[in-house]
Amino acid sequence: MIVHERPVHFEDVDAAGIVFFGTFLNYCHEAMERLFEGADGGYVGLITRRKIGFPAVKVVAEYKAPLRYGDVARIEVTVPRIGTTSATLRYAFSRAVDGVHVATIDHVVVSSDLATMTKLPLPRDCRAVLEAHAT
Amino acid sequence: MIVHERPVHFEDVDAAGIVFFGTFLNYCHEAMERLFEGADGGYVGLITRRKIGFPAVKVVAEYKAPLRYGDVARIEVTVPRIGTTSATLRYAFSRAVDGVHVATIDHVVVSSDLATMTKLPLPRDCRAVLEAHAT
Amino acid sequence: MIVHERPVHFEDVDAAGIVFFGTFLNYCHEAMERLFEGADGGYVGLITRRKIGFPAVKVVAEYKAPLRYGDVARIEVTVPRIGTTSATLRYAFSRAVDGVHVATIDHVVVSSDLATMTKLPLPRDCRAVLEAHAT
Amino acid sequence: MIVHERPVHFEDVDAAGIVFFGTFLNYCHEAMERLFEGADGGYVGLITRRKIGFPAVKVVAEYKAPLRYGDVARIEVTVPRIGTTSATLRYAFSRAVDGVHVATIDHVVVSSDLATMTKLPLPRDCRAVLEAHAT
Repeated sequence: MIVHERPVHFEDVDAAGIVFFGTFLNYCHEAMERLFEGADGGYVGLITRRKIGFPAVKVVAEYKAPLRYGDVARIEVTVPRIGTTSATLRYAFSRAVDGVHVATIDHVVVSSDLATMTKLPLPRDCRAVLEAHAT
Repeated sequence: MIVHERPVHFEDVDAAGIVFFGTFLNYCHEAMERLFEGADGGYVGLITRRKIGFPAVKVVAEYKAPLRYGDVARIEVTVPRIGTTSATLRYAFSRAVDGVHVATIDHVVVSSDLATMTKLPLPRDCRAVLEAHAT
Repeated sequence: MIVHERPVHFEDVDAAGIVFFGTFLNYCHEAMERLFEGADGGYVGLITRRKIGFPAVKVVAEYKAPLRYGDVARIEVTVPRIGTTSATLRYAFSRAVDGVHVATIDHVVVSSDLATMTKLPLPRDCRAVLEAHAT
Repeated sequence: MIVHERPVHFEDVDAAGIVFFGTFLNYCHEAMERLFEGADGGYVGLITRRKIGFPAVKVVAEYKAPLRYGDVARIEVTVPRIGTTSATLRYAFSRAVDGVHVATIDHVVVSSDLATMTKLPLPRDCRAVLEAHAT
């Protein structure tokens, strides 16, 4: 498990005064990039040098409580499933201040050649990173 | 069914050159606002005057093909389920130019008092709008 | 002059309840894309096929009144200056409902080869578009 | 002077592959929030408890070099001007890796009552923060 904490930004809220539901996926991606810091060149190296990406093929998000400006999101990332070319990342969101559960998001990604957008076996170093956080 | 078409904006893509997976939910929200044009004061009236919102409690998104800058997303919105306080909206995304299926997103919303963030029975006019597009 | 009207989106506001000051530049870019519809392949064709872009080198924005959710921004675009490789676009923002002046933004762009990020003479068709809206 | 370093996020780039020009203002706001950490309750306290904000009335941005995914923006914040109700913040952007100058942005903000959107004298603690970084 890795933990990514990040404050809600001023512009992350919507006209209802809570973090926009789509913006949770921006937070997930940040947390995923943290996870892949252990891969060769990190997520940046994957995208810009190795031309490998992990586009989402499925997301299942359950929202339990809102986040507001002033909150810090605490995001625990684990990896409940690792396949040949894909993996599922799970992000458990809570409010850092009091631990209130905010959301759980499952994110299925597929290792992909960015030039052709075809799937690739998970690179060895990425698999190692995922396995280190498998549940 | 309503249909919402919108071009991919210049800044909607990510470093992999495709529309960011979270940004699909921005498109869904736009389409939902279109759907609620038939309610009293539209979605704007709900939020700003009636202080009623429809926060997401669940999203299930399946991504089948990427969208890129230059594409126009065609989004067909239907309502597969209507409950007492909640409803499920379904967004079928395709590329307008060739009809290629891009994504299907189910979005469960709960009618909520924005002051207290507690659930409310669906207002009558909102229910009517949803029923008009029920499947 | 071209006029681009667009409603404030639900997620365009910030924690102060007004359109985030940076988001005005997203609206400007949309309006610029409208302006370039008259160029060969439009702005999309410039970016994706011709590999020519118009990155900003300077922006001067004066904000006079806020925009809120429910407002429609009316943006009048003119071109006060056209040079060899650069041009200045001016966006006059008002609220569509009552004409209240909201902001004036000057946006200096430079015609650029996207591969090398070096400046290029304005393509003939782009110059024609700009001249059609010169003031 | 305070220094705010932040990596370019995966979704901060546009279809030209560089950080969208409007997104620089998101980075500025982040840096401003860092600056105001020294105020009572920080920027969050200003907005949510004290109902005081600092909306922009003017921005002058000069862009000299692009930022790309993989870059870390280094933002030096100073305060070249402090008035009765307003102040000018200056953000000097460089690339952290090599110090290349990226942009300079001047941001004039006005201390404002968020309920009425009328200007207020700079609160004493905010003035102290600004003076600590005056140039």
